[in-house]
Amino acid sequence: MTYTAEIIGVGTELLLGNTVNTDARDISEALSELGINVFFHTVVGDNPQRLKSAVDIARSRADIIITTGGLGPTYDDMTKQTIAECFGKKLVYDEETGRLIKEFFDNIASKTGNKMTDNNLQQAMLPEGCTIFRNEKGTAPGCAFESEGKHVLMLPGPPMECRAMFSACALPYLKKLSSSEIISRSIHIFGLGESAIEHRLRPLMQSLDNPTLAPYAKSGEVMLRLTAKADTAQEAERLMEPVLEQVKRELGDIIYSIDGKSLEATVVTLLTEKGKTLATAESCTGGLLAKRITDIPGASQTYLGGVNSYSNESKTIFLGVDSGVIESLGAVSEEVAIAMAEGVAEKLSADFGIGITGVAGPGSDGSEKEVGTVFIALKTPEGTRCVQRFAGRDRHRNRLMSANYALDMLRRWLTGIEIPG
Amino acid sequence: MTYTAEIIGVGTELLLGNTVNTDARDISEALSELGINVFFHTVVGDNPQRLKSAVDIARSRADIIITTGGLGPTYDDMTKQTIAECFGKKLVYDEETGRLIKEFFDNIASKTGNKMTDNNLQQAMLPEGCTIFRNEKGTAPGCAFESEGKHVLMLPGPPMECRAMFSACALPYLKKLSSSEIISRSIHIFGLGESAIEHRLRPLMQSLDNPTLAPYAKSGEVMLRLTAKADTAQEAERLMEPVLEQVKRELGDIIYSIDGKSLEATVVTLLTEKGKTLATAESCTGGLLAKRITDIPGASQTYLGGVNSYSNESKTIFLGVDSGVIESLGAVSEEVAIAMAEGVAEKLSADFGIGITGVAGPGSDGSEKEVGTVFIALKTPEGTRCVQRFAGRDRHRNRLMSANYALDMLRRWLTGIEIPG
Repeated sequence: MTYTAEIIGVGTELLLGNTVNTDARDISEALSELGINVFFHTVVGDNPQRLKSAVDIARSRADIIITTGGLGPTYDDMTKQTIAECFGKKLVYDEETGRLIKEFFDNIASKTGNKMTDNNLQQAMLPEGCTIFRNEKGTAPGCAFESEGKHVLMLPGPPMECRAMFSACALPYLKKLSSSEIISRSIHIFGLGESAIEHRLRPLMQSLDNPTLAPYAKSGEVMLRLTAKADTAQEAERLMEPVLEQVKRELGDIIYSIDGKSLEATVVTLLTEKGKTLATAESCTGGLLAKRITDIPGASQTYLGGVNSYSNESKTIFLGVDSGVIESLGAVSEEVAIAMAEGVAEKLSADFGIGITGVAGPGSDGSEKEVGTVFIALKTPEGTRCVQRFAGRDRHRNRLMSANYALDMLRRWLTGIEIPG
Repeated sequence: MTYTAEIIGVGTELLLGNTVNTDARDISEALSELGINVFFHTVVGDNPQRLKSAVDIARSRADIIITTGGLGPTYDDMTKQTIAECFGKKLVYDEETGRLIKEFFDNIASKTGNKMTDNNLQQAMLPEGCTIFRNEKGTAPGCAFESEGKHVLMLPGPPMECRAMFSACALPYLKKLSSSEIISRSIHIFGLGESAIEHRLRPLMQSLDNPTLAPYAKSGEVMLRLTAKADTAQEAERLMEPVLEQVKRELGDIIYSIDGKSLEATVVTLLTEKGKTLATAESCTGGLLAKRITDIPGASQTYLGGVNSYSNESKTIFLGVDSGVIESLGAVSEEVAIAMAEGVAEKLSADFGIGITGVAGPGSDGSEKEVGTVFIALKTPEGTRCVQRFAGRDRHRNRLMSANYALDMLRRWLTGIEIPG
C-alpha cells in the first residue's frame, strides 16, 4: 500500500513571513525517499480553531498527518491540545518526560541563567497512549499515535530540532508502517547543468521503476537521488548497484561524491587522507573559498590559511606578485592568478596553492575584461595550472561559481582526473 | 475593512522537498505590511484536480487568493487553466503578451541559442477581462481578476520573478483595494536577543495601533518592522516619526541601521563615507568576515584585503605575530588578536585592522579555552581595543556571531559610540 501524507506547519511567524517553512521541505524530501506521497502542505497560525479546521481537511485526504511547531511551553503553543481534541484523546502527564525537562534545566540551562518555570512542565503533557519522541536538541518532546486508521506525528518547529527528531524518531516510526526497507544515495555533480544531465540520463530515468533516479538543482551544482525499496537494506543496495555504475559510466568524472559530501568537504577529506596541505589566495571571491573550506570541522588539519588580496598592493605585499606584472597585464590575468597561487603556497610552505582573480561585478574593473571573467590557478607539487572560466554576471553567483571551479580543479588533481582546459 | 488572504503554492517540486517555499514567505511579509491578514498557506502539486480542491477551500475562507507557480509553457503548468475553470472564466489570447514573448525570444533568447517553440505562446492565453502583470524577469505573465467578491492573483513560481512581479504589479493592485498608503521601516539591531527586546518594547508595542511595531529574529540579529497606514505617504511618515524616536531612545546604540542595510553594508558605507580603509586577519572565522564584506558591491573602495591565518605559522609569516607569544599565551588570546589586527593594518597601511581568534569547535583547540571563546581586536588610528566574547558552541553560529561582533565593534568606533567591555 502507498501512503499519502500531509504536512501542517503551525506558527504565526510563518504566516507573517518571519520564517520560511524549511521543515516542510526537509520532511517532504525524506518522505519522498520513503515512497510516501505528499499531496498538500498547509501552514496555519497559532490559533486552535484554524488548526482544527486544517486537521479536519487533512484527515479527509491523507493517511499520515505530520505537524511541525507549537509544542513549546508558552501560551501560544497549542498543537498537542488541539490535535488531542480533534482525535478525542486526553493529555496525560508523562513522568519520564517531566524528569528529563527538570534535568535539562538543572544541568544545562542553569549555566546560562535560565530558570525553569512551571509552564515548562506543560511540555510533559502528552496524548494518552502515544509513542513519545525525545527531543535531543531542545526540551519539547514530539509524539505519534494512530487513531481511526490515521497516523498523526507531531514534531517541534525549530528546524534543527525538527530534523533531528525526524531522523531519530519519526523515520523509524514511518518505516515500520511499511514492511520494506528504503535506501537512498545522493550523487553530487559539478560541471554540467540540470537540463543537460536530465537529457543525458532521461532514457535511464524513464526505464527505472525501482530504484528511482531524480535530479535536483542545487546552487551551481546538481544532485541526483537514487532510491531503492526492498525487503532488506542489503537487497535495496543490490538493486542500486548496477544503476549507480551506469550513472557513473554515463556522467564520468563530473560526479564528485556519492556519499552526500559537499565539494569543499570532499576536497578537505581528500587532502586530509593524503596528508597534504592547502593555502588560498583570493581576489574576487574575497574569502568565500576560505570560508567554505573552514566551514568544514577539522579543516585545520589540512588548510594552513590564505590571503584575501582584494587590492593590488595586498597581492604584492603578501604574495610577492610583481607590481609591474599587475600594471602591464592587469590584476585579472593568468599571470597574476599563477603568481598568487604560487606565492601563497610558497609563503606557507603548502603542498597546494589556489589563486583566484576575476571581475565579480556589478561594475567593471576598469580594464577591458568582461564582468564574469575569472582566472583560477592551482599550484601543485608537480607544477602550476591555470584555467579561465566565465562565472556569470551576477555578483553572488559569480563568486559562488568561481569558488566551485577552484574546488573542483583541486578535486580533479587529487583524484588524478583531467582538468578541462 | 480588513482583508484576509491565502497563498497557494503550485508545484510538485515543493512537495518533493526539492525547493523551499520562499514565495509564500516573501508574499506574507509584504501582505503583513499592507495590513492584510494571512491565515493559511497551502502547497499543492502540478495536478489540476487537487489545485481545484485547494482553490475551493481557499475561496471559502479568504478574500484574496494568491497563487505562485504553474504559469510556464510546459504541459505541467496548469494554474491559469485550472483557476479560470474554478471561476467560470474563459482563457483568451492576448496579442500584446504574444508580441512580447516573440520579442523576448528574438532579442534575448536567440543569443543563448534558445528557439521559441509554439508552447511558449500558451503563456499569452489569459483569463478574460483580467489585469495582466508583466514579467520583467521571465516570459510567463501573471494576472489578477475579481470574481464573486474574491480577488485572485497569479504570480510565477521562480522566486526572482515572483518577487519582482509582486512589487511591480501585485502591490499596486492590492494597495488599490484600500484607499490608504502603507509605509514601513526596518530597524536593525545587534547586541540584544529577540525576547529581551520584546520585553523592553512590550508596553510600547501593545500601546500602538497605527503604526504597528513587530520584532523578527534574523540570524544572530533582530529586526523591528515599523508600519504605518494613512491617507498619504507623508501622513504615514509623520505617524511613524515619534515612534521611531521612542524606539531609538529605548534601544539606543544597539540599533545599527534604519534603512534596511545589513551590518556589513553599514560598515562598508561608513568607511567609504569617511574615506577610511580596512584590513582583516581571521583565525576561527577563516574568511567569513572578509566574505561578508566583499559580498557588498563597491567594497573594494574601502577593503584592502586580509589574511585567513588558520595555522599558527600563517599568523607569524603574514602578520608578524611573535611565535613565542603564541606558544606562551596560546593562539586564542587577547595578545594574539591584538597582534593580528595591528599586523594586518600595518602590512596593508590600512586605517583599521580587525583581528579575530577563537575556538569555533566542534573540537577544543587543545588549550584550556572553552569552545565558543573568541577574542576580537580592533586597531584604529587612535589605538587598539580588544574584547572577549562568548560566541556559542555551535560551529556555524559561533563563526557568524564572531563576525557580527567584529563588524559591530567597528560600526561603534566609526559612529563614536561606546564599545561594551
